[in-house]
Amino acid sequence: MKTYQAYLLDLDGTLYRGKEVIPGALEFVRWLKDSGRDFLYFTNNSSRTPEQVAEKLRAFGFPAEPDQVMTSSIATARFLQEQLKGTAQSVYAIGEVGLITALREAGFRFDEDRPDAVVVGIDRDFHYEKMKKACLAIRNGARFIGTNGDKALPTEEGLLPGNGSLCAAIATATGVDPVFVGKPEPFMVHYALERLGSKPEETLVVGDNLMTDIQAGAVGGIDTLLVYTGVTTREQTAASDIRPTYEVDNLLQWIQKEAASR
Amino acid sequence: MKTYQAYLLDLDGTLYRGKEVIPGALEFVRWLKDSGRDFLYFTNNSSRTPEQVAEKLRAFGFPAEPDQVMTSSIATARFLQEQLKGTAQSVYAIGEVGLITALREAGFRFDEDRPDAVVVGIDRDFHYEKMKKACLAIRNGARFIGTNGDKALPTEEGLLPGNGSLCAAIATATGVDPVFVGKPEPFMVHYALERLGSKPEETLVVGDNLMTDIQAGAVGGIDTLLVYTGVTTREQTAASDIRPTYEVDNLLQWIQKEAASR
Repeated sequence: MKTYQAYLLDLDGTLYRGKEVIPGALEFVRWLKDSGRDFLYFTNNSSRTPEQVAEKLRAFGFPAEPDQVMTSSIATARFLQEQLKGTAQSVYAIGEVGLITALREAGFRFDEDRPDAVVVGIDRDFHYEKMKKACLAIRNGARFIGTNGDKALPTEEGLLPGNGSLCAAIATATGVDPVFVGKPEPFMVHYALERLGSKPEETLVVGDNLMTDIQAGAVGGIDTLLVYTGVTTREQTAASDIRPTYEVDNLLQWIQKEAASR
Repeated sequence: MKTYQAYLLDLDGTLYRGKEVIPGALEFVRWLKDSGRDFLYFTNNSSRTPEQVAEKLRAFGFPAEPDQVMTSSIATARFLQEQLKGTAQSVYAIGEVGLITALREAGFRFDEDRPDAVVVGIDRDFHYEKMKKACLAIRNGARFIGTNGDKALPTEEGLLPGNGSLCAAIATATGVDPVFVGKPEPFMVHYALERLGSKPEETLVVGDNLMTDIQAGAVGGIDTLLVYTGVTTREQTAASDIRPTYEVDNLLQWIQKEAASR
């Protein structure tokens, strides 16, 4: 078995679930740190800033600094800078503090009426007026970018509407489909490697979701570890065309597997 | 040419556009009335009550009483009574006064938490909390009914999000597609004929929209008159599989055509 120098770690369903740490996750991240591996937390959740995510991780007991966190909002701001260079200086953003902060810190101007791009992330204050502004801007030629396409969000209340459903409303009203930046698209993985300064062949993507985490690794040409502590089941993997490089029931198994292969 | 005893009249783009009456429309409806034809106004707009629609029509100069107006909200309440008899007594409704009034007058109980059906019409106060309640109820087994599937609404501000886009958000978040009642589905036409007491073969559907008005007539087995004063162009008709029975540039032409065929 290969030894991986760099790890990209999904959060929800991989390291914690709701308010509880997933058994083995703390030991796993401590093992990464103690063995001198590089690692980055990467999440489709666009609502929080890296500071807020790092604080939450530290409260669970994980070692985490803001620059070890890549959110889909950070990746989206980066994407806009890189891909739309010179064409998108102003944005109309629908989203929460994580997205607004990322866009502001990346130097974008906010313009509700004539933006170069409409950027949409999960927004628990989403309402018709915002949808209307987004639609008018897109019909007026603004690009349409979504932080991530997650259709539903697992919460303690049940599965709630995710950003993919907000974007679906705007796409239906305009006839224009968004470009998504988060997993399973390759962009966020690409920016994460860049941040770590690691090569695809020495990096492992770790996550619980076959359709987002594992697919993002697969399209990015990076090996993947699927852990069955979150949304995907072994039955779903067996029935899918998407194949993780490795599968474990929990992250302690990975430490054992790695040690046994030496 | 056949003589039609009953007419179903679309509103926006057919009789008026924004705040202006479409030339020929007043003469046309007066001609229907004076020649003893039966007619009913029928609109996908779920936001107003029949009283409000009739009042608006009278302000334009059209003869109109509330019982001459069939909205998609009235049709939706009827649909729920008929098709879901005994199974749907409570509803969670997202919509404006037209929908809420229609459901209340049809005897439905409003229940946000455990409704038998989620009913969605255009709602300029649509927001995340409403979407969330709809999604939880549908995931809990409630049926999902949309008054109409119009994706965008032509307004003086431009094309704004229509009810089809609100429903798309909920459909994406739940994985459940709505049943739509308004045009181009056949239900509203069916209820309109029932209200007029007229037979399909003696009835003509008049509208400006090939994809909704004309398609609704076509699937209902009713002859159709497409008038080119609204959204559809002759080029679009030529390129479409949907065929209106008749086409005119304005409604005065129809009066002449009818007179000439006698």
